[in-house]
Amino acid sequence: MNPENWLLLRRVVRFGDTDAAGVMHFHQLFRWCHESWEESLEHYGLTTAEIFPGNRNSEATPEVALPIVHCQADFRSPIQNGDALVVELRPESLNPNSFQVHFEFRCGDHIAAHALIRHLAINAQTRHRCALPEGIDRWLEASGVGKIGSI
Amino acid sequence: MNPENWLLLRRVVRFGDTDAAGVMHFHQLFRWCHESWEESLEHYGLTTAEIFPGNRNSEATPEVALPIVHCQADFRSPIQNGDALVVELRPESLNPNSFQVHFEFRCGDHIAAHALIRHLAINAQTRHRCALPEGIDRWLEASGVGKIGSI
Amino acid sequence: MNPENWLLLRRVVRFGDTDAAGVMHFHQLFRWCHESWEESLEHYGLTTAEIFPGNRNSEATPEVALPIVHCQADFRSPIQNGDALVVELRPESLNPNSFQVHFEFRCGDHIAAHALIRHLAINAQTRHRCALPEGIDRWLEASGVGKIGSI
Amino acid sequence: MNPENWLLLRRVVRFGDTDAAGVMHFHQLFRWCHESWEESLEHYGLTTAEIFPGNRNSEATPEVALPIVHCQADFRSPIQNGDALVVELRPESLNPNSFQVHFEFRCGDHIAAHALIRHLAINAQTRHRCALPEGIDRWLEASGVGKIGSI
Repeated sequence: MNPENWLLLRRVVRFGDTDAAGVMHFHQLFRWCHESWEESLEHYGLTTAEIFPGNRNSEATPEVALPIVHCQADFRSPIQNGDALVVELRPESLNPNSFQVHFEFRCGDHIAAHALIRHLAINAQTRHRCALPEGIDRWLEASGVGKIGSI
Repeated sequence: MNPENWLLLRRVVRFGDTDAAGVMHFHQLFRWCHESWEESLEHYGLTTAEIFPGNRNSEATPEVALPIVHCQADFRSPIQNGDALVVELRPESLNPNSFQVHFEFRCGDHIAAHALIRHLAINAQTRHRCALPEGIDRWLEASGVGKIGSI
Repeated sequence: MNPENWLLLRRVVRFGDTDAAGVMHFHQLFRWCHESWEESLEHYGLTTAEIFPGNRNSEATPEVALPIVHCQADFRSPIQNGDALVVELRPESLNPNSFQVHFEFRCGDHIAAHALIRHLAINAQTRHRCALPEGIDRWLEASGVGKIGSI
Repeated sequence: MNPENWLLLRRVVRFGDTDAAGVMHFHQLFRWCHESWEESLEHYGLTTAEIFPGNRNSEATPEVALPIVHCQADFRSPIQNGDALVVELRPESLNPNSFQVHFEFRCGDHIAAHALIRHLAINAQTRHRCALPEGIDRWLEASGVGKIGSI
């Protein structure tokens, strides 16, 4: 399977993403990151019901929650309405309880922004640290294989 | 108690509410409506834990959910960054299972927008119609008394 | 050209679209409507720079602005994280200065929500009513032809 | 003047800020930061028209734009619907063209989150670096004085 299928996504900037300065309002980038991450998991083959609460086809909430403990972004050049962005995800395993995802947003031939989101795995009931869900482990591993394969 | 405390609120338009046309992006109005409604309930004396799921001080989700079944808005004049709006709520009981709230947004001496949000009471487990929560009934009744009192 | 290309779109509900009641937070629907409308114009062949201010490839702001003067939505059944929605647009010309778009959101075999957004054409400088942009006129007309063709 | 007036703000978490995990959806924090910054500038005595484009009382866009070049957040404990947060701003001048603001969000006696937003001053037309607007300089300086005064 081509890793581009789940690590290289596309997004068109929409009018509601802008502000009165005429460019993308900064915090929309984090919404795009999270949505791209969800899309990546789906394209890889996971169901949202495995990972996220609030799904139609799951009576129970997943045992493991993945709250975000840190995020950051660097904005390199203005992002404007109608821009067709390429979003490249680089997932990174940190330890048995934690991972982060780098997001690079490209517009044409330049980098428009870079972001990073770090998740911690906790038991949804006790809120104690726990192992990452098995599906996330597979996605992390496959992402690394993909990168090796693309060298 | 002065009904203005819970039916006449204020809101300043913020930069992130605008779009590249330089005015408020339309759907933000509905966010303001819902936030004003929550603020009104609090100012009246209800706790958010009585009405909404996801609160710190409530182990259980409220038995009754209040999904929105209809909403609408009319935009009369442009709303701009920094505008200090007055938001007047006019709650209206429809039947034992349902109520709606009118929201009038004024900027200076003119009406900037009007909105309406209609809620239905359902049992959060069975999702069948049920009676409105007792706190909402009190808030609805007090709102009516307030209006009579202000004539 | 198949009208489905520009009037029948798809959207997956994302985690950030939900609230603590476990379902789509109501006003996100209007964001989806506007984004679907922009996508429809693009798929039909218009550039965003023709219609919206704030674009990379347009030094000047379009002469005609299309503010929303009315919108409404009816919510028929809960919309949940991961739902793959079909969004059908039915554009409707109202008069030389105004048009509206109906949006039907389907999830599987049932209608999840219906929305309506009404735009007025105004001169961006004088803010007086004016004729619709030529591209919007073509899109409106082609949408009607598409419907006849599909009978 | 008491620096608390413009550096210590309050915010109640609203239902639309949550997601189906029952807690604040992470990127809302950045919206709160920006809104708190705008509120701080207003409380200090600046008008939004001096700093932001898209205002009612300014025909011209401010000469200087203040795009965000970096932002980051650390989430320490879950933030829930109805939480009454205290937001403390600590502005920091970096150089003649740049400043950043630290935001500490407290809920009761614990720190719920910390965020940082860094702005660069550019000429809105040429997009070249330039001096910070005079009002921002005064706000930065007064914030420092406030801190000294509170020791």
